[in-house]
Amino acid sequence: MSSAAATRQPIDPKLIIPFVNSVRQVFSTMVGVPVTIDRPSIKSSPGSMYDVSSIIGFSGEVVGAVVVSYQRETALKLVESFAGSRFDLLSPDFADAIGELANMIAGSAKKDLGVNASITIPNVVVGPSHSIARLKDVPCLVVPCKTPVGDFAVEISIKPMQKQA
Amino acid sequence: MSSAAATRQPIDPKLIIPFVNSVRQVFSTMVGVPVTIDRPSIKSSPGSMYDVSSIIGFSGEVVGAVVVSYQRETALKLVESFAGSRFDLLSPDFADAIGELANMIAGSAKKDLGVNASITIPNVVVGPSHSIARLKDVPCLVVPCKTPVGDFAVEISIKPMQKQA
Repeated sequence: MSSAAATRQPIDPKLIIPFVNSVRQVFSTMVGVPVTIDRPSIKSSPGSMYDVSSIIGFSGEVVGAVVVSYQRETALKLVESFAGSRFDLLSPDFADAIGELANMIAGSAKKDLGVNASITIPNVVVGPSHSIARLKDVPCLVVPCKTPVGDFAVEISIKPMQKQA
Repeated sequence: MSSAAATRQPIDPKLIIPFVNSVRQVFSTMVGVPVTIDRPSIKSSPGSMYDVSSIIGFSGEVVGAVVVSYQRETALKLVESFAGSRFDLLSPDFADAIGELANMIAGSAKKDLGVNASITIPNVVVGPSHSIARLKDVPCLVVPCKTPVGDFAVEISIKPMQKQA
């Protein structure tokens, strides 16, 4: 499939709504921070740059990934609110906490997706101004999220598994 | 489990050898570049910094991820040799090619692991000097790989799935 075709390919809203709901719920109950969800948009290429990203992969009846990306200070403040301690950005404690947030978002959304899928344990990327590349045949929607301590983004690039011919 | 305990936790060699073999095979047959594998070591925290990483997640009887990480110029040269064209680092073509290399490494290794596991489609991270964080309860082995066009690293952090109590 060409890149242009992938860009036009819509994402089924049934795949998006569970994530929007789980982001709101996880941040309000587990982090104690209210989240305002802005209008999602198709991810451009190259995408926005972030300092911290947690990646959860999906396999099974839906495949792809959900990535929760932050600027440095926002990630540090959200983890402090979630874990009750301020951790160094490069510490395993910080990675575990920021990964666990993504795990809860993906896990809660998976239940509502109504599909048979597995999620991976989180991969946490730390580095100033990185981007998660868009693959050509996977549509990706960016959901902007605003909180009182800074904004972050949830990038949803999942699609139903295509049956092998 | 404490961080110190996780660091001491060995990785079963049966989980490593299939990846070492598949890295050699994929690079020699698909990229046309010989790879020399150096002695693996336990990943320190924070780990080394890279400019390009492809991440493939595992779920099922083994869980975790395999990450193939490069410096910028090495990644550009290996993709040029693999795809036959030099792509821009931020282009979807580059992401697809560098992701496909990781997909072939993980897919070929998975066959030899002799376990029932799913792998995700690749996630490709591009950004100067990023690291993939070590989670506390997942052991991670770094396999240094040398080629005539530069070195790269394969980070293997998979473990048998623990049965839920």
